[in-house]
Amino acid sequence: MDSSKPSGGLTLEREPAPLPSESEDVPLAVGLDLGGTTLTGLLVDAWGHIRARRRRGTPADKDPETVLTAVRDMAVELLAEAAGGLREPAVIPLLRPVAGVGVGVPGPVDPERGVCLFSPNLGWRDVEVASYLHESLGLPVKVDNDVRVATLGEGWVGAARPFLTFIVITVGTGIGSGVVLDGRLWRGPGFSAGEIGHIPVDTRPDAPLCGCGRRGCLETLASGRAIETEARAAAERAAEGGEATSLAGVLRDKGRISARDVADAARAGDAVARRIFETAAEHLGVGVAAAVNLFNPEAVVIGGGVAGAWDLLGPVLERTVRERTFPPNHRFLRGILPAALGEDAGAVGAASLVLVPQDGM
Amino acid sequence: MDSSKPSGGLTLEREPAPLPSESEDVPLAVGLDLGGTTLTGLLVDAWGHIRARRRRGTPADKDPETVLTAVRDMAVELLAEAAGGLREPAVIPLLRPVAGVGVGVPGPVDPERGVCLFSPNLGWRDVEVASYLHESLGLPVKVDNDVRVATLGEGWVGAARPFLTFIVITVGTGIGSGVVLDGRLWRGPGFSAGEIGHIPVDTRPDAPLCGCGRRGCLETLASGRAIETEARAAAERAAEGGEATSLAGVLRDKGRISARDVADAARAGDAVARRIFETAAEHLGVGVAAAVNLFNPEAVVIGGGVAGAWDLLGPVLERTVRERTFPPNHRFLRGILPAALGEDAGAVGAASLVLVPQDGM
Repeated sequence: MDSSKPSGGLTLEREPAPLPSESEDVPLAVGLDLGGTTLTGLLVDAWGHIRARRRRGTPADKDPETVLTAVRDMAVELLAEAAGGLREPAVIPLLRPVAGVGVGVPGPVDPERGVCLFSPNLGWRDVEVASYLHESLGLPVKVDNDVRVATLGEGWVGAARPFLTFIVITVGTGIGSGVVLDGRLWRGPGFSAGEIGHIPVDTRPDAPLCGCGRRGCLETLASGRAIETEARAAAERAAEGGEATSLAGVLRDKGRISARDVADAARAGDAVARRIFETAAEHLGVGVAAAVNLFNPEAVVIGGGVAGAWDLLGPVLERTVRERTFPPNHRFLRGILPAALGEDAGAVGAASLVLVPQDGM
Repeated sequence: MDSSKPSGGLTLEREPAPLPSESEDVPLAVGLDLGGTTLTGLLVDAWGHIRARRRRGTPADKDPETVLTAVRDMAVELLAEAAGGLREPAVIPLLRPVAGVGVGVPGPVDPERGVCLFSPNLGWRDVEVASYLHESLGLPVKVDNDVRVATLGEGWVGAARPFLTFIVITVGTGIGSGVVLDGRLWRGPGFSAGEIGHIPVDTRPDAPLCGCGRRGCLETLASGRAIETEARAAAERAAEGGEATSLAGVLRDKGRISARDVADAARAGDAVARRIFETAAEHLGVGVAAAVNLFNPEAVVIGGGVAGAWDLLGPVLERTVRERTFPPNHRFLRGILPAALGEDAGAVGAASLVLVPQDGM
């Protein structure tokens, strides 16, 4: 591929960003990442610099009106920052070039209509996110799925910035991915491309049951929840005289074990914890190999909470992908990289929905 | 997705074709499908109608000059048909609108330069197919991978014609696939997207070794060769007093068992043969489920020799894909269909390389 060829799709910014002092008049946007537990909002400029940040809990009451009011309030605060303190959103566009508001929501989204079709995390179905926010803010509003906006964020100013064809996989409680092909986000005609968390990896009849109703999905083997389930089982076996592990003490003391506890125990030399992490990484590698064979990407970026343990995850993942990928596709792969934007990726990418031209593919 | 939206890429012809008598003056092209054993050539018009056909063995001597001479000779014969019998290719464009020559070759191709980068079947490396044929024929020449041209053929006038986003999987000696996304062929930046035959399905350390050097690739479990290997093992077990199967007699009489023999035995009620076919179909279903989860296609088309046994393959494949695919992606899938063009798919698609506008994605 001739990488100098202009892309018909999302223009990934590759010029070095000017110093912030030179970019006072660049357009701004508000990006919001609505999670099941956390709401993150950023004021972002057209160079991808973060100018202001808000982060707070998503309302416990997941009624769309309640949640969208909280989203709107956070947008108003960030628009006020853009205007230098004024809290009346209607006048902000007169004062500064605010291009609009982008929002990432968990679950399938129709980005053309700005509707969240379905969200298990929020208990939503057919919620008109864009029109609600547009009416209350008076600005253009774009909405997309949370994993896709995180993918756009990593592609715009994060770990995938040097690449035109890449996959961003988020490994948290669940596993999802966003796919960018030749600079264009590939959503799929049903808006459900990139469902790597549900590709069948364990095909035995007694494979673990997934939340989707199928068995043996990658998500049941390599997600944060899978690591926690394995850790609890190992701790219970240890308590009953099985192989010793410090995870038994964690379970006894806290009543539960998080994926972070497993990573900490593995780093402290606990062999059982290390094996749990490595097994998860090997399963993830099988899924990554499948995606690399099918998409032929230049890079794979791993984000989400579990990717925070890159010291444990990265080497095993790289080895497994090398062993499991069709050799020409592996030779073409420039890297498997940890995400660069952390918890900001989704909101940065949401802002890019309004700051960066897209072709709506 | 709004399916009425014009695609920026390959324009898939959806108008009803006129009667041949009305289309005397439509452009023509020669499409050639160069296989390791068979060379197929077609004269095709811009409606996708086949006007003339040649099929013969690929030269045993796989030297590029020898093979390309045979390809050129077949093209000359078909161009002569276009000109109504004249055998001098240089004058043909004056007599009829011959748009050019398209060629499908086995192995990775750089379609921009028309170079076959590598072909294990032919023993080729960096063979300049397009420039050789262009110089000797005086017409535009386009070259692409054999599976991709078969995919274009099925999309243009075959089983995938109603769809804009689809995958065509060829199950023969090996397993490959071509991927069309929103009307555009997705080749991948390294020209090796769609390598579904090499996604890891059997992850056990002692999984069968693949020709690519990895273990447990889909191709080792669901290809014609995999079916033949299983059949031979079952026949040998039967000869040694294991479960009886008519395949033992086939092996004794012919010295080998083809995938077609296994299909015939299964249809005649042989339980062992039926199980071999069903197991292959289940493995194929795992690979299809992975691809459907990642690409979110409207349809999957299965071609290649093994797909000829659709009565055996289809029902098990459909059940497995239903059981293994993420439910929203399965609901979106309009169908899993057998290929419609048979052995002509590759040459029809090769002709479409010069007859149908593409964006070179």
